[in-house]
Amino acid sequence: MTSPHEYVRAHSAGFEEELNELLRIPSVSTLPAHRADMLRAARWLVDHLRHIGMEAELAEEGKTGAAREFSPGEGHPLVYAEWLGAPGRPTILGYGHYDVQPVDPLAEWISPPFEPTVRDGNLYARGAADDKGQILTLIKAVQAYLATKRPLPVNVKLLIEGEEETGGTTVERYVRANRARLGADAALVLDSGMFAPEIPAITLGLRGIVTAEIEVSGAARDLHSGRYGGAAPNPFLALAQILTGLRDARDRVLIPGFYERVVPPDPEERSAWSRLEFDEGEFLRDEVGSPALGGELEFPVLERIWARPTLEVHGMPGGFTGEGTKTVIPARAAAKVSMRLVPRQDPDEIYKLFEAHVKRLQPRGTRVAVRRSGYLTPAVVMDPRSPAMTAARAAFTETFGHETVLIRAGGSIPVVTHFTGLLGLPTVVTGWTLSDSNLHSPNEKLHLGHFHRGIDAVIRFFGRFGATADS
Amino acid sequence: MTSPHEYVRAHSAGFEEELNELLRIPSVSTLPAHRADMLRAARWLVDHLRHIGMEAELAEEGKTGAAREFSPGEGHPLVYAEWLGAPGRPTILGYGHYDVQPVDPLAEWISPPFEPTVRDGNLYARGAADDKGQILTLIKAVQAYLATKRPLPVNVKLLIEGEEETGGTTVERYVRANRARLGADAALVLDSGMFAPEIPAITLGLRGIVTAEIEVSGAARDLHSGRYGGAAPNPFLALAQILTGLRDARDRVLIPGFYERVVPPDPEERSAWSRLEFDEGEFLRDEVGSPALGGELEFPVLERIWARPTLEVHGMPGGFTGEGTKTVIPARAAAKVSMRLVPRQDPDEIYKLFEAHVKRLQPRGTRVAVRRSGYLTPAVVMDPRSPAMTAARAAFTETFGHETVLIRAGGSIPVVTHFTGLLGLPTVVTGWTLSDSNLHSPNEKLHLGHFHRGIDAVIRFFGRFGATADS
Repeated sequence: MTSPHEYVRAHSAGFEEELNELLRIPSVSTLPAHRADMLRAARWLVDHLRHIGMEAELAEEGKTGAAREFSPGEGHPLVYAEWLGAPGRPTILGYGHYDVQPVDPLAEWISPPFEPTVRDGNLYARGAADDKGQILTLIKAVQAYLATKRPLPVNVKLLIEGEEETGGTTVERYVRANRARLGADAALVLDSGMFAPEIPAITLGLRGIVTAEIEVSGAARDLHSGRYGGAAPNPFLALAQILTGLRDARDRVLIPGFYERVVPPDPEERSAWSRLEFDEGEFLRDEVGSPALGGELEFPVLERIWARPTLEVHGMPGGFTGEGTKTVIPARAAAKVSMRLVPRQDPDEIYKLFEAHVKRLQPRGTRVAVRRSGYLTPAVVMDPRSPAMTAARAAFTETFGHETVLIRAGGSIPVVTHFTGLLGLPTVVTGWTLSDSNLHSPNEKLHLGHFHRGIDAVIRFFGRFGATADS
Repeated sequence: MTSPHEYVRAHSAGFEEELNELLRIPSVSTLPAHRADMLRAARWLVDHLRHIGMEAELAEEGKTGAAREFSPGEGHPLVYAEWLGAPGRPTILGYGHYDVQPVDPLAEWISPPFEPTVRDGNLYARGAADDKGQILTLIKAVQAYLATKRPLPVNVKLLIEGEEETGGTTVERYVRANRARLGADAALVLDSGMFAPEIPAITLGLRGIVTAEIEVSGAARDLHSGRYGGAAPNPFLALAQILTGLRDARDRVLIPGFYERVVPPDPEERSAWSRLEFDEGEFLRDEVGSPALGGELEFPVLERIWARPTLEVHGMPGGFTGEGTKTVIPARAAAKVSMRLVPRQDPDEIYKLFEAHVKRLQPRGTRVAVRRSGYLTPAVVMDPRSPAMTAARAAFTETFGHETVLIRAGGSIPVVTHFTGLLGLPTVVTGWTLSDSNLHSPNEKLHLGHFHRGIDAVIRFFGRFGATADS
């Protein structure tokens, strides 16, 4: 009898061809022109999952019945699949997404984004790394077991969404409405990456985010700066006063209470970070490219981006921004602001502290309005000692021949918040992408060696996590 | 023999009809589609000036010969006219412009902008007040003299440009190239307004201006604020630091040396301003509309807008300014800045002080570039005791039955700088518009009573100024 690993080695060419099939479907979720492609990709997954032996359907919020078509007007379809043939064994809830980013600027692609092409051991295509290639490592691991070794060491549920790149809420609504159905012992979210080539990583923490807009109004209408300069308030200069009252020249946030609940990473985690192969000079030169790094220089870079809260300004709409000169004192100006949050900071509370502080800073002669906009997600941090985490660390270390490092990420993955917060699941956030995988950029790529080893890694994770039921 | 004033009264209906003819030509200088209309308006003026007995031509930079057509590719034509039939008498150089602002938003016009319509004693049309109606009062005054009382008390030269609303440089180049031809004893610039209904005014001073753009660069490309927030510099927050270093919360400019050469208005002028009927509460409510006025509150409002230098921000391009949220740390952001200047401040010196101060303020981790943009005009202030000023004050006071008030304006009229600076002429800046004439806005209007009295006022000014040669 062949082992799942032997099955994988014997079928590697076929797995690549199946990935190419999925990559050829231009499932760009943000562009209405691709709505039919979205449905096509979701159906491809359902057919494929049934083909390997899972029960699969196009799921919709509140629907728990058999497969049915999703109405395009309600959002992009969610794919749900399960194999529950191992009663008494633990259950894993796997997650990935089949939607991809737009391809602009198209001219910069060396090979067309939806014609998968191999160069130097990398598979180039939009979605190769984010996230079709990653979700396939999970599906192929299930297939390898189903084809070789039933019952599986674990029961498997899969949730594959089509709105990750749009910030859609379908998956959240579905999770809220299907807590029982999605019940599991742990979750495996395959939408993150490795720390470096050959160095597997688990993302233990994700920062939260709250976004807001500050609008300052001065005069009732735009005024000529010759006629009124010296008498009318200037909303941009008022905003500058507010912004320097929100973050100082050393990038320290000045909102009273902002840092109050911040929990520093525990000494073990911090010490593990310090041992990571991270070169600040390289990071500055190759990734950021500014004259020097910013942030709270008293903290190491990785701690600044993983475990320190921040406040950023993304744009300042208003007034005249065209070519040339228009000497207007604008009636209003705004600042688009976000704050990245760390564990224990409550997004609602932080927003309230922010709002109150901005109002305290209101410059004379102006009105200040503060509005929430878009995101409100708490940070999450996972327990590195849970059985799922222990199993994943060992499985990945064994597969890649390098100790699995425990990292965090500065951004948010909302589904992780739903899995940990709504379902209470220990959640392993991982993946096989690299910092040069060109996610969201031209020439997105996935290292094919990492694709195949990713399948092995998931197989080993299933085996080790399933074994925890025996101990 | 009729007097010029009797001639005016007898021909008032005809004068209005002639103004309507000129107003029907949509001479919008900023829109290429109206280039032919520009030429048509200029030719209408040349024909009309010849018809009343002046020598007139379409003039071009460097050309001093007979009338010739102006090539549209070089800019909008300049109209020059003269009547020099009073040797030994003083010469007046009159100025106005025949180009008008665009009409947007068209839907807000009660009657079509290029179909002059009278309502409640006001003539509504684009250009009625700015500046066709005003320049016609000067032409009709010349006509009234030429038709009734030769030789005139003064020689008259007229320069009527078509680039006032575009900030064009044709008139400056023409003045530089034709100093001898434009030689005069005083200039009369009809492109300003009255202080209030029935209160004639002479604008004794105009602020200067220098405009600049500050660009702050951080990272080499736009970065995701999740992945890089806490490590990458934020150009908008850097700009906020710079801007609060340029102007404080009390609207005081912080550039070292900025106020060094500022000359306060003389006590007589300041005391005259304090006697003007100016209601700060009304100004705040009806004109500005902000919760309170800004500026250096230790100075009276009129002094703040007429005689104090300022620094304003007009817009801050960069980053994400669309609907919704995009959590980008932009690679760069800019601020469009202008400074209004007062007499004795040298625009070049102020720009250098500004640039040096901005560079001193450069936040860590960023590059800062400072560029001049658009305008660089010094302030002007005229001697209220010159013979032309004395003649104008008396003429306007006699005509309107209210003492002529001496005011300043916070904006610039570049041609005044050329007349005073390049030609060394005492320059009377005046006009018959009101603060509610809707210059540059829908429903621009000129009070017809002021149009006719404006003609009388110019006639009296010619008479009184001409008489100075006899004393």
